[in-house]
Order: sequence, then C-alpha cells, then structure tokens
Amino acid sequence: MRTVVVTAPGQIEVHEVPDPVLPGPDGAIVAMEAAAICGSDLHFYDGDLPLFPVAVGHEVVGRIVEVGDQVRRFAVGQRVLVSSVAGCGQCVGCADGDPVTCLSGGKVFGAGELGGAQSDLLAVPAADFNLLGVPDGVSDEAALLLTDNLGTGWVAAQRADLKPGGTVVVLGLGAVGLCAVRSALLLGAGRVLAVDPVAGRRERAASFGAVAIDAEDVAAAVLEATGGRGADAVIDAVAKDASLDTAFASVRAGGTISVVGVHDLSPYPLPVLMGVFRSITLRMATAPVHQSWADLVPLVQHGRLETSGIFTHEFALDDAAAAYAAVAARTPDCIKVKLVP
Amino acid sequence: MRTVVVTAPGQIEVHEVPDPVLPGPDGAIVAMEAAAICGSDLHFYDGDLPLFPVAVGHEVVGRIVEVGDQVRRFAVGQRVLVSSVAGCGQCVGCADGDPVTCLSGGKVFGAGELGGAQSDLLAVPAADFNLLGVPDGVSDEAALLLTDNLGTGWVAAQRADLKPGGTVVVLGLGAVGLCAVRSALLLGAGRVLAVDPVAGRRERAASFGAVAIDAEDVAAAVLEATGGRGADAVIDAVAKDASLDTAFASVRAGGTISVVGVHDLSPYPLPVLMGVFRSITLRMATAPVHQSWADLVPLVQHGRLETSGIFTHEFALDDAAAAYAAVAARTPDCIKVKLVP
Amino acid sequence: MRTVVVTAPGQIEVHEVPDPVLPGPDGAIVAMEAAAICGSDLHFYDGDLPLFPVAVGHEVVGRIVEVGDQVRRFAVGQRVLVSSVAGCGQCVGCADGDPVTCLSGGKVFGAGELGGAQSDLLAVPAADFNLLGVPDGVSDEAALLLTDNLGTGWVAAQRADLKPGGTVVVLGLGAVGLCAVRSALLLGAGRVLAVDPVAGRRERAASFGAVAIDAEDVAAAVLEATGGRGADAVIDAVAKDASLDTAFASVRAGGTISVVGVHDLSPYPLPVLMGVFRSITLRMATAPVHQSWADLVPLVQHGRLETSGIFTHEFALDDAAAAYAAVAARTPDCIKVKLVP
Amino acid sequence: MRTVVVTAPGQIEVHEVPDPVLPGPDGAIVAMEAAAICGSDLHFYDGDLPLFPVAVGHEVVGRIVEVGDQVRRFAVGQRVLVSSVAGCGQCVGCADGDPVTCLSGGKVFGAGELGGAQSDLLAVPAADFNLLGVPDGVSDEAALLLTDNLGTGWVAAQRADLKPGGTVVVLGLGAVGLCAVRSALLLGAGRVLAVDPVAGRRERAASFGAVAIDAEDVAAAVLEATGGRGADAVIDAVAKDASLDTAFASVRAGGTISVVGVHDLSPYPLPVLMGVFRSITLRMATAPVHQSWADLVPLVQHGRLETSGIFTHEFALDDAAAAYAAVAARTPDCIKVKLVP
Repeated sequence: MRTVVVTAPGQIEVHEVPDPVLPGPDGAIVAMEAAAICGSDLHFYDGDLPLFPVAVGHEVVGRIVEVGDQVRRFAVGQRVLVSSVAGCGQCVGCADGDPVTCLSGGKVFGAGELGGAQSDLLAVPAADFNLLGVPDGVSDEAALLLTDNLGTGWVAAQRADLKPGGTVVVLGLGAVGLCAVRSALLLGAGRVLAVDPVAGRRERAASFGAVAIDAEDVAAAVLEATGGRGADAVIDAVAKDASLDTAFASVRAGGTISVVGVHDLSPYPLPVLMGVFRSITLRMATAPVHQSWADLVPLVQHGRLETSGIFTHEFALDDAAAAYAAVAARTPDCIKVKLVP
Repeated sequence: MRTVVVTAPGQIEVHEVPDPVLPGPDGAIVAMEAAAICGSDLHFYDGDLPLFPVAVGHEVVGRIVEVGDQVRRFAVGQRVLVSSVAGCGQCVGCADGDPVTCLSGGKVFGAGELGGAQSDLLAVPAADFNLLGVPDGVSDEAALLLTDNLGTGWVAAQRADLKPGGTVVVLGLGAVGLCAVRSALLLGAGRVLAVDPVAGRRERAASFGAVAIDAEDVAAAVLEATGGRGADAVIDAVAKDASLDTAFASVRAGGTISVVGVHDLSPYPLPVLMGVFRSITLRMATAPVHQSWADLVPLVQHGRLETSGIFTHEFALDDAAAAYAAVAARTPDCIKVKLVP
Repeated sequence: MRTVVVTAPGQIEVHEVPDPVLPGPDGAIVAMEAAAICGSDLHFYDGDLPLFPVAVGHEVVGRIVEVGDQVRRFAVGQRVLVSSVAGCGQCVGCADGDPVTCLSGGKVFGAGELGGAQSDLLAVPAADFNLLGVPDGVSDEAALLLTDNLGTGWVAAQRADLKPGGTVVVLGLGAVGLCAVRSALLLGAGRVLAVDPVAGRRERAASFGAVAIDAEDVAAAVLEATGGRGADAVIDAVAKDASLDTAFASVRAGGTISVVGVHDLSPYPLPVLMGVFRSITLRMATAPVHQSWADLVPLVQHGRLETSGIFTHEFALDDAAAAYAAVAARTPDCIKVKLVP
Repeated sequence: MRTVVVTAPGQIEVHEVPDPVLPGPDGAIVAMEAAAICGSDLHFYDGDLPLFPVAVGHEVVGRIVEVGDQVRRFAVGQRVLVSSVAGCGQCVGCADGDPVTCLSGGKVFGAGELGGAQSDLLAVPAADFNLLGVPDGVSDEAALLLTDNLGTGWVAAQRADLKPGGTVVVLGLGAVGLCAVRSALLLGAGRVLAVDPVAGRRERAASFGAVAIDAEDVAAAVLEATGGRGADAVIDAVAKDASLDTAFASVRAGGTISVVGVHDLSPYPLPVLMGVFRSITLRMATAPVHQSWADLVPLVQHGRLETSGIFTHEFALDDAAAAYAAVAARTPDCIKVKLVP
C-alpha cells in the first residue's frame, strides 16, 4: 500500500510499503476514504520535531476491511472514523474517555509508534474503543474533524473555565483555532476575540461569529476591549513563546489560559510569581477524543456546531507533497487539506 | 505606634511611626491583639523580593478602634480579623469574593501599598468588605489562619481539581502546606502524600492524616505509590524551580499542579510541549480570602477543620527580630509564629 | 400616583393612591418608564392565587427620583431596572446573588408585601442591591426582561443539568418558555424540542432555533425523537399537573425536570417510587435575578442572547384592563405586553 | 442450588432450584461467599411491593465458577463483587457508569427479572461490566457494601449539592443512612444532623461524626440549629410521606432534598408552588453503582471511608427466615445482616 512519509524537513514522499497486519485480536484494518493534514503534522515537516523518516497522519475516515475476532461493535464493511490518539480501551484512563490518560500511554497515529493515517490502510488497535461508526448525517469532512481538530478546539474551550457571558481570546485561526471559536460560542461565551496575523483567517472567524482583532499590540487591544480588565480566558492555538506572552498579558486576574498548540522542544519561561499573584490557571491539553464524541456528535448532527469553512483544499494521496506545500504556506485561503485515494 | 520594618535582607526593626488615619469614610482602624508571620514575609527578609524598607505583616486579629461613617456592618469595639488581601468591595471582582480579581487591584497589607499588620494599629480600607467579625468559637490562632494561610491551603486543594478518592501530593509542609494537607483530606482525597525535607514536619503532616514520603527521589516514590501512574494532583507550597520540576515528574497525565508558594522573580522553564502531550493543568493562586470564609468558618466552628498544631511560637512585637530569626531558621519545631502587643 | 390593582378575578382597575415614601435610608423611588405584565401576574387575575385587592407588577424600568442617604451606587436621574425579587442585600443569601435565599425572605414586588411595579412610582428597598443601571446597548424591552423573565428562562436552562449536545424539551412557549429556548441553545443544547398547544408560539420558538413538536401525545413524540430514550432534560414553564405528567413521561432515566412556572395551590401527585428507580431530578426555581445579571448582561449587550420577538403589544397604564385581557386570551400573537405611562 | 424466596408478606422460604446457566457468552456464574439483606428487600417482605413469589437479594460477594467466552477481564476462581443493578455494558448509559440509565433498562437482581443474590449461585450478565474484582484490602463486609448501600449513601450525599461547610440532615439511620452520614462528612459537610426514632441508631451516627437530633419536631430542631434558615441539604433515606414532609420543612430556600429510599406505590403530594417559590431541588436516585466504584474503592482501601459498624448480624442461608425477622424488627442493635452459605 501507499503511505505518506516525511523523510527530512520539507521533504514529503509517498512510499509503497507492505500492507499492515491486524494489531491483535481486538484490532481492525481501515481502508482510507479520506485523510487530512493536521497542523501538528507540520511540526515534522517544519523540522520542529526532528523524527525522520516518519509515516504521518492521524486523521482518517474509511471502511473496515478486516477485524479481529474479539471486536464486538464493528464489522467488515462499516464506515468509521478513527481517534487520532489510540488508547487500550481497558484501563481507568480510557474509561474516562481520554486516551491521553491511558495507563499504557495514549499513542498518536503517524508519530512513530503507530502507522500513519495518510495511507491506503491503517491498523487500529482496540478497535471497539478507538473507532466510531460515522454517525448519520455527518459528512466526511465533519468526520475527519471529529478525529482530532474539532475535539481539540472543543477541549480548548471547555478547559478555558468559561462562564456564560465571558470574553475569550483565541490566538491562531487555523483549523483548531477556528473550531475553538465555534466551540467557545456554543459554550456561551459573551464574545470571542479572534487573533491571527492573516486577514483572511480573521475574516473567516468573524463570519463564524467572532470579533476580529487586528492590532500590532494584541494585549493592548484586548485590554481596551475589556475596559482594562483583560479577558476571562485566552485560548492559545499557536503555542509559541510569543503567543504565550500575549496570553499572559491579555488574561485578567483569576483567568485561564488554555493551550492546545504544539510548542517546540524548548521550555517556555513562565512568569510564575506573577501567575501566583494574579491567580492565573494554565491548562495544556491534547484532545480527549473519545470523551469529546459524546458532546460533539449530537451537536454536529443537529447542525448546532458547524463544520463548514474549515476544509479548503483537496489533493490525491499521490500529490501529498503538493498538499503539504499548500498547507505549509499558511496562506489566507488554505486552512485545511483533505487527501483522497 | 510601633510597626515592624524589614530594612534590609535579614534586618528587622521595630519603628515608632505616626498612628494611621482612616482610609476614607468606608475604612476602619484595627488595634492589633495578635499578628502572625507568614512564609511570604520571609521573601522580603530573605531578600527574594528586594523592597526596602517595608512595613510588613498581613495577618492580624484585633479590635476596631475607629470606623468611617459609611461603614454599616462594624462598630468600634468589635473583634475582627482582616483579610490579607484588600479589595474595593464594590466591583465585580470583589462580588466574586476574590480581592485578587478586584478591578482596582487587590492589595496585600505589608507589601508597600498598605500598612503592615505587624503593628499596633492597622488602617483597613473598605471595612465592610475586608473585615470579618471573629466568629463564635473561633480562637485567635484560627482567626489568624483565616486571614491567609488556611484560605491559601484551601484554595490550593480546591484548585487541584480533586476527585474523591484521588491521590494528592503536597510539597512543602510549612503552615500553608499543612493547611493544604487538611484541606485535601476534607475535600475527599483518597490519600495525601506529604513531602518535606524536615522529618518533624513530615511527622506533623502524618499526625494530620497524611502519608509521609521520605525519599531522595520524590517523583519516583510517588510513581511507586501510584502503581506507576503518578498523582492525580500535586500541591506545590514551595514554588521553587526544584519543586515545580518534582511536581511535573510526579503528576499523572491529565492531572493538575496547584501552586500557592511565592516563587522568586525569575521565570520557571515550563516544559510546555510535554504539558500539552500529557494534558497537564497548572493553577497558580493567591487565596481568594473572602470567598474562602464562606466555606471555612463553619468548618472551623464545627471542628471539622482543625487549626491546632500550626502555631508553635509566640513573641512580643518588640521581639520581632528574634521572631523572624526563629521562623527563618525553618527548624522542625518552628512552623508559625504569633506576635502579641 | 396611579397603580394597577387586581380587585377580583378578571377585574383590573387603575387606582389613584398616595405616592410611596422612601423605604429607609438605603432605599430609592423609581419613576416608571415602562413596565410589563408577567405570566405570574395572571395567577391573580385568573384567580389561582386569590389575594385581593393586590397592586400588581414586578417588572419595571425607569428613572430614580429619590435616594436614601446610605445609597452609594445610584443617584437621582439614573436609569435603572429593578429586580422582580428584592433582597436585603446584606445577608449570606444575597451575597450569593439570589434574593430567594435572603435570610429576611426575598420579597416579590406586586404580591402584597411590596408595591406593584405597574405604577407611576415604585419604592425599592436596599437600592444598592436591587437596582441595576440600565447597561449600555440594552433596550427598554431587554431591560424589562432582565427584571424577571430572561433570568427565569435562564435559570430554568441552567438548572436543567444540561450537557452540551443534550436534548431538552421546553413545555410552554410564553415569554419565559421562549427565553428558556434561547437560553438552552446558548448553553450548548444539541436540540430544543418546543411544545405548546398554540401553533403561532411553536413557530416563534422554531424561528429562535428550536424544533417544534406538534403532537397529541407529546411524550410519545419526545421518545420517538430520542430513539426511545427520552429527553436529557425537560423545562416545564407551564407547571400544571398535566405538564408535570408530560415531563415525567418524557425525561430519560437519570435526567432532570426543571420547573419554573407557578403551579396552583394544590399539591402535585409526585411518582416518587418511579423517580427513585429512574434517578430523576426535579428542580423548582424562582429566578435568582441578581446572579443571572452577571451572565445575562454581557450576553444581551454583545447580541449573543436575543431579546426580540417576546414583546408583542404595548398599552398605556390607564388601559391596563385591556392589556390584561389581551394577555389572558393567550392568543398566538400576544406573548408579552408592555405598559407605558 | 438454594435460593431465598419471599412467598407472601412476612413469608421467607429457602427453595431448592436448578442451578442457573450462563446468561450468554458475556456472562458469568458467581458462587456466593456472603450475601446481605438490603432495606429494599424488606419492601417485598413488608408487602409494599406485592410481587410474589420473588427470589430476592442483590448484594453478593463470591467466586467465579464459570465465564462465557467473550468475558475478557475475569476468569474462573476470581473473587468478585456484583453490582446490585446490572447494565448491558455496551450503551451510552453504561458508558457513564450508571446502569440505571442503561438503554436496555438497568435490572436489579432479586426483583423478578434476574436471579436473587441470596442464593448459592448467581448468573451475572455482561460480566466485564457488572463484576468488580474484590480490591486488595477490602473486607467481605466492605465488598458487600460496595454492591449497593455504600454507593447509595454516596450518591445521596453527592446529589445533595453540598458545599463545603454546609449543614446536612440525614433522615433514617439504617445502613444507607449511616453510609450517607459518612459520605457527607467525607465530602466536606460542616455538620451532619442525624435523625432516627431509634436512640441506638442515633448514637451510632454520632459515633461516626454526626450530631444526633432527638426531637419530636425534627424540622423545628433543624431550624433552631441553623439560626432559622434551614439545612442546606436533606438526605431522605426513609422516603415515606412523613419523611418527605420533614425534608421540605427542614431545607432552606435554595436547598436540595436528596431521596434514596424506596417509597411505596402511591404518589407523594408535592408542594410544588412552595417548591418553586423557595427554589427547592428534589433529587431522587438509585445508586449509579459502577460510577461510584471509581470514588469509593480508593476511599475504602486507604481507610478514609470506614465500613465498620454497619453489619451487626450474621446468619446461615438456611436461616434466612430468622435473618429477615431480625432486620424487619428494626431494633436498635440490628442494622444489617450478612448471610453465609
């Protein structure tokens, strides 16, 4: 089968490799019908996470072509989406619906331990846990977002300790940031102030219901918009030192900074004394994907949480190099790319 | 009147100064009957916060000797305790009971802006908000703890996102850490693992219901005690780089680190990438004193939250230099010092 | 001054009475600019609550014409809205923002103890607590809704123990029911199923985002819409025996029934054995008005919570009899009536 | 095998019946080592629930003697306790850990649909879900309490909406009420006021940390103890009309009544108008047994939640009639009975 491999910074190749085998009697093999490129895939491509060669991708929807004999909830032929993070499905952490807290360690597809999802076939362990039947009325694009980005935006908003009516800043308006904008509104935010250097992305956020902030000094603009108090919460979907600095300068005393982006390997110089004096909470999170499904599936099905306007491009798997180049350019009109067989 | 002043690192003097005047028609003057030395006072004394000269102290119980004519809830002669952090009492932040979030900026007594509480008299602004009548059945020592340390230990435990039955580590067993031990137990912790380099302090914590951890490698001991998973929460009442490192190494994926100590001025190198991958929450807090009173007063009154075993020494105000020396020595048998007129 | 009085079932008169006097030094007198008729006023008019004669009305926006000398936050000339329930402003219940829990007993205007708000002038005790300056960008109609109905719909939704994505039924689509529809959506409901015998009201709810249920057997329709499980929550804004029966028949095991309507004086035969076996929660509530302002004011100001489409009619105070007749007819096009001087 | 059968009100017989067979490939057969009589078993015995003949009992600890081939977590020979309520283990309700909300309908053992647990053998469906391995350090008596009563007392306290420091009344000091006393204390109650007509039971509750209330007029005593305000919460472990009346008369405005007892078949005349005016919450619940295990097992293991002092008597299974007679007498010294083979 074919699989997309990052061989070096900026180098994407489509390799022919042996088909995967069932990862035990509780596993399944899924044939990809659509996969997506996540912002975190770019960290390999950009060289921030220097792990080469690596078969990448962790967002996929497809059809089951093989199941182990311990699998009870799924059968060959069923259309499914795959959690980007796989848990064992048997431990107390998985019982919470959060594979990040799996006692065996949650494993992300396409990061070395498990196969990459930008492939013809993907081996999924603990299929009863890590697969979700594509729900009625959920499009392929919505299904792809349910594997990761929508849950990530959702957890970013949930862990922002929002009170209804509160003011939330979202830093970074890629796919996750845009999902966070919609999530924060759905959770009762009074205002979402949306920040991104690219005007087209700000406009997109505004069309989703946010107030676009276009300012040199973002923190100053947030303070002005909040009568000098600062925002109740800041969602940092960039997670660079600069965005974290902005977050600390924008959040009010007693507020929360919710970080979902992938920082580089170096530590961030945390102003801990100021944090204590101002009672700041800093939450860092990877999506608890399974947990999020309970909330998100009905919201998507009933049209309460829109998923349109996130996918902007489609490429064939064989054109993965061009697809990565398009995303990496971070142009205003390219938010998220779908790969098809 | 007399007031305790830190004039330089390690230098305590008792100065004679003019009596304070009413800080506006909503203020009051309180005559000290007992004051206490807080661990955070030592940051001036140790030179971590180089602000000299500074009249120190923010924990006091006493009797009202003067009130402004807008004060409605208090009268001359009443025995009161004073919140260590003063708010305006009129804004949305104070309505939440958290002077840290006061729109005017919560102000700590004895840190430059307001008078020091280790004095004969203390001027208290917004008296209706910042004073609490000493409740029936509450001793002077309990009252002193209600001004700061008990609320600090309490908020540390509350913001540790504890689930009943969970395992909590408390790092640092001074007055605040010991209050955090009791608070975590009262909030339903399954186990409190208590850590301090001083054996006498660990024994004290054990007598309060904690399990003392005596190990070179604290994180390894916590992992062993939790079957390799890590603690659900870590309360860091030390807040040095080393204790924060221990907290990150001891907390489980999905867990919370709750920091209440006063770090020095330098930033802490936060492992943000690991924090995101493991979904760690880092809460930093100063006590929301007024908020905590609603919970703590009945708990203390009904004997559910013990306050004994924290105060270990008593000095006259004139002997403040000796008192500071005793606390600063951080000997096993000296936890907290009371000053009396 | 003039005041609207219910003198007998179905009898409304506008009486000339002496102007009210300041209710103590912490009170204020408000000159009505607009008042509204609440569904609960109809309980006097309909004879359910046989208390005659009674000066009615508890929803008013106006201008302060007199203040006591202990009032600190308001001055003559200021435009304000008045909480429908008045608290003392000094006790622990009022500190929670819920005058229903006032230790002196929260008092509703226009129900015998305090004056009626459908008057030229209204005496308001504890003005610093019970008044709210009309916020910028808030219309008179929105302000009137903030005195009661919006907070009532809001608390109905809040106390429905909603999880995001959940299905909520709203029984009764008068002003409170319609506010509850919008509140439930804002709080993340997956679906709001809206029930009322009047088609025009169902259409109104549908235009607010609900799914209208038009069925003889409402519970059967809810079960069908939820795959046989029942709704996660039912908001009962009717509160008659019949609507409570429907609520119990429609709610899922483990779900919540949230009642905000005014039942008559007779008890409801509660199926308590079934309630225990199915783990049902029944919440009954009067709006905690002051508490709700913190959430609702920014939501209204930022346009996140719409208040249009609730007021449908306007009458002069002198025409109060006609106004009551219009509301009492419960016709499709008459939802809520505004009275002006 | 032998099984205990209620054949008519007050009539207990031990019948010889065929051994049960595996309830499907996901089921197991458990050989009883100890069973217990629950207060709700008495409702058959007393004739409140007239379902005869019925094989009773739903509290059992034992050893697995047979497992279906789809069972993954358990094997023959393992010591287990059995949830009193069985769920399918596959639906969204069971994923919440609450078999009451099972989409197939949670089924209680010993109530007609499933076998009675006061038997030599018990067939358990969905064994991976409905069994729990007896945890290290958990005695047989504690294990029996974990099947039902401890989780029932725990949920009663959890759903009482307790704030730390609050005052809780517990009505009825049988096994569930006593477990509720301990649970409320563990969850941070300021005071637990314990009510029962039998002095010995009140003394037992007092020895667990409660304040015993011995009064003709319980509500008056509660009001006096709370300065006239009423209790923050009332746990009704009796659930008769009289105890519900006491609960409504004792709870403060804005408070919660949490009902866990089994009422008879007739409805309770609920004062719904008063409930709305005073914002009362009425929660009724059967234990969400599986959910409770996550909290309770570590609390029991670490000695934080005591289980001693509940079991007072032991009988052989063949002496079930005498055992029931002892419990039904509700004497001071008989709280709970254990049956052994």
